[in-house]
Amino acid sequence: MTIENISINKSFGGWHKQYSHQSKVLYCKMRFAIYLPPQASSGEKVPVLYWLSGLTCTDENFMQKAGAQRKAAELGIAIVAPDTSPRGDDVADDDSYDLGKGAGFYLNATQAPWNRHYHMYDYIVKELPQLIEATFPVSNKRAIAGHSMGGHGALTIAMRNPERYTSMSAFSPITNPSNCPWGEKAFSTYLGKDTATWAQYDASELMREATQFVPALVDQGAADDFLVEQLKPEILEAAAKVSDYPLELKLHQGYDHSYYFIASFIEDHLSFHSEYLNNSIGRS
Amino acid sequence: MTIENISINKSFGGWHKQYSHQSKVLYCKMRFAIYLPPQASSGEKVPVLYWLSGLTCTDENFMQKAGAQRKAAELGIAIVAPDTSPRGDDVADDDSYDLGKGAGFYLNATQAPWNRHYHMYDYIVKELPQLIEATFPVSNKRAIAGHSMGGHGALTIAMRNPERYTSMSAFSPITNPSNCPWGEKAFSTYLGKDTATWAQYDASELMREATQFVPALVDQGAADDFLVEQLKPEILEAAAKVSDYPLELKLHQGYDHSYYFIASFIEDHLSFHSEYLNNSIGRS
Repeated sequence: MTIENISINKSFGGWHKQYSHQSKVLYCKMRFAIYLPPQASSGEKVPVLYWLSGLTCTDENFMQKAGAQRKAAELGIAIVAPDTSPRGDDVADDDSYDLGKGAGFYLNATQAPWNRHYHMYDYIVKELPQLIEATFPVSNKRAIAGHSMGGHGALTIAMRNPERYTSMSAFSPITNPSNCPWGEKAFSTYLGKDTATWAQYDASELMREATQFVPALVDQGAADDFLVEQLKPEILEAAAKVSDYPLELKLHQGYDHSYYFIASFIEDHLSFHSEYLNNSIGRS
Repeated sequence: MTIENISINKSFGGWHKQYSHQSKVLYCKMRFAIYLPPQASSGEKVPVLYWLSGLTCTDENFMQKAGAQRKAAELGIAIVAPDTSPRGDDVADDDSYDLGKGAGFYLNATQAPWNRHYHMYDYIVKELPQLIEATFPVSNKRAIAGHSMGGHGALTIAMRNPERYTSMSAFSPITNPSNCPWGEKAFSTYLGKDTATWAQYDASELMREATQFVPALVDQGAADDFLVEQLKPEILEAAAKVSDYPLELKLHQGYDHSYYFIASFIEDHLSFHSEYLNNSIGRS
């Protein structure tokens, strides 16, 4: 596995770095960003929070706009921000912002032409952590978080792999993609008509049936334009009640879907994950 | 004075808002952003930090990338981020990134065609504060800060108007524009050959001759690619010694010219300004 450094910036005593590498599961060149806190420079193996971004984003949105580095530096947590889809000229795409490049939905596509490159689920669960843990001074303690489409990704990936993540969190997640316009469009295109497959990528479905638990924090803005039609936190909350899932879901008056909302509460998420990352044994 | 609201986002309990208005001194429509801390919503008149951005920036860069709202909310300071030049189809421009739109250099141009719209000095010193103080729940206590070209703007504007600002600060400022490629290009184009006029827009010249003092903080990254050729903090430091100017200048190992540097130390700047803003009498 060869990876190439693209940029490096000192940040809060640690380092923000961008890399590119050839992905074996996505069959294309991918870029990701990593924030290494100061503790990583002194030989300590730090735990990692994976951050999954929303529609249209790249590795850059979170790193530039969330203001997460200050608290990550204080807590000694690395952050990895992957891209949101496969990239490159030979990767299938669509003109709309909510399908194709920038809209990988963190799943493994089964339908042509998407099934050639769109395997973001495997990339996030397996290939990327393997690369990160082989390359950087990090431990195998992992947490996962995300925003909107990335909130969907974080919750579904953690619930399907509870042995691999200490904790999961989301801002404004698409909680029930089988039952909202963004999700129905993406799932029918990438996964076809088999709704049993859809359920494997639906946080509310997974939470309702869960028997193994990953501690979960979800923040949602009450002034979010996508709240009613796309995000539907009440469905996730109802699912948690069925399985008695350890979900803390908070609604914040006045806050919208933007990074101004994420920045306002990212410290809470880092503190939440730190409690589990810094007290857990290694993960498989 | 009519101003039009463009966007609004809740942020750390306060509000980030963008507005447009017709500028009387720039003869064009301008956009600015304001962050109003929570204290402004409870009837309190809060002091204002004006932030001047660098080359190519708009009102958005600082508000999205600096992570300043957390500390501003805590300290009860409003932040105003103007654009970096006049804008619009009839405004003179240049193909290069360091001249014309996005590169107003916070001066009043004397040379055609630039002297029609390029009066950013008057806009920042007079028109914008008048508009802000007539529109928002803010006091007439003002501080000023900026980055690179905006650091040059903040230092020169405060030193020429010491009665109007409690304090000034800069990240990576162009300290001696009369004597570096960015400054020589801009000054010769906007101001012509009259170097006496140049000196009025040169922080090192003003600091060397100063008899009235505005408390000053300057942070500079030691790994900044522009340090030696464009920024030259040692010239500002030498000027401060001549006039015994109250300048605190810090060099930070490993940090570059990016917003990752600004975000790492913006809290220090807000605390510095707060000391003066929250303890001073009203300004003229």
